[in-house]
Amino acid sequence: MKDSQPVVAVILGDPAGIGPELVAKLFNEAQLFEGVHTVLLGDRWLWQEGQRVAGIHHQLPEISEFSQARQYAGPVFLPTNTVTEGDVNYAQETAAGGASVLALLTQCMDAALANEIDAICFAPLNKLSMKKGGLKYEDELHFFANYLGVKEYFCEFNTLGSLWTARISSHIPLKDAAGYVTEERIVAASRLIYDALQLAGTPEPRVVVAAFNPHAGEGGTCGREEIDVIIPAVEACRAQGYPVTGPLPADTLFIKARDGEFDAVITMYHDQGQIAIKLLGFMGGVTVQGGLPIPITTPAHGTAFDIAGQGKADVSSTQNAFLIACQMGKNLRKKRLHARNS
Amino acid sequence: MKDSQPVVAVILGDPAGIGPELVAKLFNEAQLFEGVHTVLLGDRWLWQEGQRVAGIHHQLPEISEFSQARQYAGPVFLPTNTVTEGDVNYAQETAAGGASVLALLTQCMDAALANEIDAICFAPLNKLSMKKGGLKYEDELHFFANYLGVKEYFCEFNTLGSLWTARISSHIPLKDAAGYVTEERIVAASRLIYDALQLAGTPEPRVVVAAFNPHAGEGGTCGREEIDVIIPAVEACRAQGYPVTGPLPADTLFIKARDGEFDAVITMYHDQGQIAIKLLGFMGGVTVQGGLPIPITTPAHGTAFDIAGQGKADVSSTQNAFLIACQMGKNLRKKRLHARNS
Repeated sequence: MKDSQPVVAVILGDPAGIGPELVAKLFNEAQLFEGVHTVLLGDRWLWQEGQRVAGIHHQLPEISEFSQARQYAGPVFLPTNTVTEGDVNYAQETAAGGASVLALLTQCMDAALANEIDAICFAPLNKLSMKKGGLKYEDELHFFANYLGVKEYFCEFNTLGSLWTARISSHIPLKDAAGYVTEERIVAASRLIYDALQLAGTPEPRVVVAAFNPHAGEGGTCGREEIDVIIPAVEACRAQGYPVTGPLPADTLFIKARDGEFDAVITMYHDQGQIAIKLLGFMGGVTVQGGLPIPITTPAHGTAFDIAGQGKADVSSTQNAFLIACQMGKNLRKKRLHARNS
Repeated sequence: MKDSQPVVAVILGDPAGIGPELVAKLFNEAQLFEGVHTVLLGDRWLWQEGQRVAGIHHQLPEISEFSQARQYAGPVFLPTNTVTEGDVNYAQETAAGGASVLALLTQCMDAALANEIDAICFAPLNKLSMKKGGLKYEDELHFFANYLGVKEYFCEFNTLGSLWTARISSHIPLKDAAGYVTEERIVAASRLIYDALQLAGTPEPRVVVAAFNPHAGEGGTCGREEIDVIIPAVEACRAQGYPVTGPLPADTLFIKARDGEFDAVITMYHDQGQIAIKLLGFMGGVTVQGGLPIPITTPAHGTAFDIAGQGKADVSSTQNAFLIACQMGKNLRKKRLHARNS
């Protein structure tokens, strides 16, 4: 019988930040690794350093290629040689650190394209390090999408507990945000997050679209995007079999979301979602890279250079990121096996 | 010696809503009325109806004009004839109810212009009733400002606990919000809220201005309003003796505000502040009408037609609104007496 358990790759993240420490802490919770084959990918010295900082020592069996992961019930270590210890320091962006991360991500994506792994979870990266190390895209999501040949819409999801959000525009001037409010983007983001939530284990996701204008435009008297674009987009989603609701005024929507009325919110611009998400609690959040052929997750926080190497990093977001990667990887693998058998 | 206690007028609000009930509950807390002369203005039958719904009976001495209020240590009732019981019903917007409210507000403003009262606190109004009843302005604040001859900038403040906010644009299409981000508006709102907070009892208010763009524009790469307008506005405030700070990214600013770092936030558009304020807790909020010659406050919530006449209304926002009116009225009266004596 075919092994139905997914293979999930874990990457240590930027060597200068809290990533290696977080991964050492992640591997301390044995029950997280039941039912999945976990491959930790990274340089041996850096993995040892992460364990030293965390005050934890792990004895992981070593493998030499991803395809061996299925021979082990528990997590395994796949050592690499991407950066030397002398080339990086805590709390410093370096080309060496960034190039190392890009090499590891590329190895994972190659494994994903070869169907050897079913999900990826990476500890925090540093954008400036990656740019110094050769990243030619605005962020890692664009790097993934390009490398994986994604032609359709993609966007990141932010999760906080059981609430997920996606936004149709991000780091752009707010005065330009209205131009991003298109039926195409709203429908694409709604469908993506709906499908991703199903993959993550929510059978019937309740997705709601936020309004763009105050009071949802008050019938067109303070803005027409709701009437001209958002309502038609919601209707288009429903016509395509996605039971999306909205638009709802943003200021009351998040109270309902907090109280459990929705599983996902599609926001119209960066701060609309981020003000709410950060107020609802910064700890524990996860970023899910949406629209890729393989689930990729990471903690919502960054490399935290201010506490790097000190053993103080909170592992909760990394645990959540890993759990979501495992759940999505499991369901993706089931779907793939089912597709192959039918 | 001149009586230094302020006279605060209280109005029952729209007859069809929860206002009369709230005022009956407000007058139940005797300690709120120490140190102020309180005048309740309204029709006798409506005041009795409010007490009936609240299940409370008050025995207030009656006066026939505002100037008699100083003869009483405790609260007094100034009966009016603005609406008959048969012309209004619970949960219905009526011209009769709206006209009644406009008449009472006008009487209060006349008393304010005659220096007979020092602050006004009104229970929730209904905008549609007022429009049916003859309101020619977009809201009550514009009505007040016009009647009181205000030529300078004015705007409402929203308070939640000890945190106050003011916004430089409100019910407008979000695509037009960038046009409202002007140095003039930011400086005016910052100065107004600073002065109002001092009047309300905060000696050195910590006022912060929110950024307009995500991540405060990231050095101009995602929006230039911070560089071109907001930073110069903050500098202009400081040059005028107002120690304002900012701009700070909106998504992290409200965490700091919640944690007590600031007394007031100037927001750049409606939802920026409202998303945060509503998430921080809807109960207890107060609206302060800023930029008028006399403090005017009201609970942040509306007439709540869905529970009108049922005795279920929560009085906390009304209590807070009254307390702020009293505090501002006290300090305003002190300033006036001081100005007259010097």
